[in-house]
Amino acid sequence: MNPSNSALLTDLYELTMAQAYREQGMEEAAVFEFFVRKLPPHRNFLVAAGLEQVLDFLSGLQVTQEELAWLDRTGLFRSELLRYLETLRFTGDVEAVAEGTVFFPHEPILRVVAPLPMAQLVESRIMNLLNFQTMVASKAVRSVLVAGGKPLIDFGLRRAHGAEAGLLAARASYLAGFSGSATVLAGMAYGIPLYGTMAHSFVQAHKDEVQAFEHFALAQPDNVVLLIDTYETETAAKKVVSLVPLLTAKGIAVKGVRLDSGDLADHARKVRRILDEGGLSHAQILASGNLDEYRIQALIDSRAPIDSFAVGTAMTTSSDAPALDCAYKLQEYAGRPCRKRSEGKATWPGRKQVYRSYADRGGFDYDVLTPLDDRGQGEPLLHPVMKEGRRLAPSPSLTDLRGHMAAQLARIPESLRTIETAPTYEVRISPALQALAKAVDHGL
Amino acid sequence: MNPSNSALLTDLYELTMAQAYREQGMEEAAVFEFFVRKLPPHRNFLVAAGLEQVLDFLSGLQVTQEELAWLDRTGLFRSELLRYLETLRFTGDVEAVAEGTVFFPHEPILRVVAPLPMAQLVESRIMNLLNFQTMVASKAVRSVLVAGGKPLIDFGLRRAHGAEAGLLAARASYLAGFSGSATVLAGMAYGIPLYGTMAHSFVQAHKDEVQAFEHFALAQPDNVVLLIDTYETETAAKKVVSLVPLLTAKGIAVKGVRLDSGDLADHARKVRRILDEGGLSHAQILASGNLDEYRIQALIDSRAPIDSFAVGTAMTTSSDAPALDCAYKLQEYAGRPCRKRSEGKATWPGRKQVYRSYADRGGFDYDVLTPLDDRGQGEPLLHPVMKEGRRLAPSPSLTDLRGHMAAQLARIPESLRTIETAPTYEVRISPALQALAKAVDHGL
Repeated sequence: MNPSNSALLTDLYELTMAQAYREQGMEEAAVFEFFVRKLPPHRNFLVAAGLEQVLDFLSGLQVTQEELAWLDRTGLFRSELLRYLETLRFTGDVEAVAEGTVFFPHEPILRVVAPLPMAQLVESRIMNLLNFQTMVASKAVRSVLVAGGKPLIDFGLRRAHGAEAGLLAARASYLAGFSGSATVLAGMAYGIPLYGTMAHSFVQAHKDEVQAFEHFALAQPDNVVLLIDTYETETAAKKVVSLVPLLTAKGIAVKGVRLDSGDLADHARKVRRILDEGGLSHAQILASGNLDEYRIQALIDSRAPIDSFAVGTAMTTSSDAPALDCAYKLQEYAGRPCRKRSEGKATWPGRKQVYRSYADRGGFDYDVLTPLDDRGQGEPLLHPVMKEGRRLAPSPSLTDLRGHMAAQLARIPESLRTIETAPTYEVRISPALQALAKAVDHGL
Repeated sequence: MNPSNSALLTDLYELTMAQAYREQGMEEAAVFEFFVRKLPPHRNFLVAAGLEQVLDFLSGLQVTQEELAWLDRTGLFRSELLRYLETLRFTGDVEAVAEGTVFFPHEPILRVVAPLPMAQLVESRIMNLLNFQTMVASKAVRSVLVAGGKPLIDFGLRRAHGAEAGLLAARASYLAGFSGSATVLAGMAYGIPLYGTMAHSFVQAHKDEVQAFEHFALAQPDNVVLLIDTYETETAAKKVVSLVPLLTAKGIAVKGVRLDSGDLADHARKVRRILDEGGLSHAQILASGNLDEYRIQALIDSRAPIDSFAVGTAMTTSSDAPALDCAYKLQEYAGRPCRKRSEGKATWPGRKQVYRSYADRGGFDYDVLTPLDDRGQGEPLLHPVMKEGRRLAPSPSLTDLRGHMAAQLARIPESLRTIETAPTYEVRISPALQALAKAVDHGL
């Protein structure tokens, strides 16, 4: 079973509601929008990500015979629903903002228009995919903001929440501006550049640290990055230097060293000096070990001679905000706009567009959220990407999406280009949308 | 591609180290142990989970032809390594504690003994699996501790970190004592009981809330649990009551209502009164909406008339501690015990056993961590589960594991049976282990 795109990757109520909708003949067009209600703590903006996987999921949507047989055996569903599921394919329309686009609360980044039972059934997986990658990209970009152009590498697989989280975190962080990942399968699946060094176990498995370094260099002559904190960091740095004549004789250059524990800035300075004095001024220093954007900023601010950073758990789990307050909400059914009014969870009704206005020098100025049929000013962010279940264009390359993300970062207001809490970016609710909400509440 | 058990779900360095080990003929038995370095914030103990998926992964370990061809194309690996990977199967031994066992920092819950390159290659995925399910079970059990026997249901799929996280969180929380999950595929994959009600969109799609309730009841006559907070909670409760004559005439009983927003305790009291006065005293109240163990405890303490709780994001992401400080460390190679001494990350060397001693009435008293060959007193927690790549016994049922977990909960010290910070449980390091660590540090 490859569960990652099963139609049963859904909540039970999506199926029971579908059964009720079918029985009542409620199959007219439903409009669902995905958006984030409010910024998580420590975020000044969000980065849209995950659309590619959503479109994959929708394109491949079907219920297998094995799944149908199992659904039947549960006794929870009537045969009419099972017949419906047997031939189910996604035939709806999707509009979305491009991955790598910066966005803000209440702005839809995806709209599904499809017959009600179908649009409902895909809710759980769409949220699951967009929540995760958007969350990770929005976390990863904060390290990008503070790293000052130094390479960042994803080391997060081991504490990612499962296999798919490891793979999609590699993708989302690369999209956000990381240089690559250690996760081999992410290289194969998405073409993400791979990076890696060596583990403490490699040193431990040898009786002698110098011998471990030598063996590694012989096996990986083009990528000699040596981990030097297994026992005593500066001692190990001197051992690296001691190896240079032997390696040079074999035509092997030491590319760098990795620091993974202790006071990274202090170790980096001492190690830099040892390497420089040992003729290894070209060798780079990679830092890892519970790094996040705050530690990276502190290391950058301290001018520690670190050339690149590996970020794992904090990024891959978005540890300070491991979920988004996101929703996939019905905003229109059968041509009638609607909205939820639950306490603290009210939404803006109807099909909407986000218009972004730019300041003189091209930076984001403010956004306007307005009904789709109310032509606004500025650049519309949502565009059709799927029509009647078919993609309207080939998937953009991750390289193109990275380019788009980098261009977005260049255009966010200077005040948002920080990991400290910034003033709120202005998202205006248009008079037309406010009027629509009032009309909906009054049952007009 | 079903990525969830690919051998390439690993870090690049596992492959480059394997290449170096092979070239140096370093294929003697390596002993790796998985353990947690320290308790996460707000945890007094941990619950082992994920072993079943680790054994699945190891049993099925292989590199496909497609993966080999891709590895070759990267140009990162020599042909000898590719030949090794082509026929690679896991042939090692595994000892582990049973899933559902309570454990503490520094206690290994899994030991792999295998030729060094093989034991190394599986590191990333083993950590990925054990970190996640152990983390979720250790979070979920906290809700079990405070719920006083009231049913708990996993509603977390939509904000779980990807597909596998959603499925495995359903499994880990069920193991920890939850009653079931909303995730349909978790029902199919693991036989977990499924629960579900209806969404706000169901009410919104109807022009009239009463009609929505009626349609749902007709479609799901055996599971009429109605969501009543879409517009105004108490008004909706009265609408439910108004439907009773019509539903009774059709032989349909209202099983319950769900509250999802606002002051849940206050709403529950008002709704309970409305239901009781309306002849629905048997109808239950399910609460959901950003619940975690603290909110559940507050609701229980307030004696709010809530019959069951659905827990989503907080549990499925372990939101207050979304990763464990866990490690899979080389403790012995070729018969020589070893350990890492990196600052703040030193480990206990050699193959180890955990012995648990019990107090007079059967409760846990203290644990002793000691070398495997030093016969200790008490109950040994690690047992052989795989020998030369083959499982030694069929998989235990989830029901049995839940039983084991419940028995463990009954035996933890009373002081740990709280969600507040408790005194540290005693894990003694045996004199023999302390002596071994010293000997290893002195290169003896």
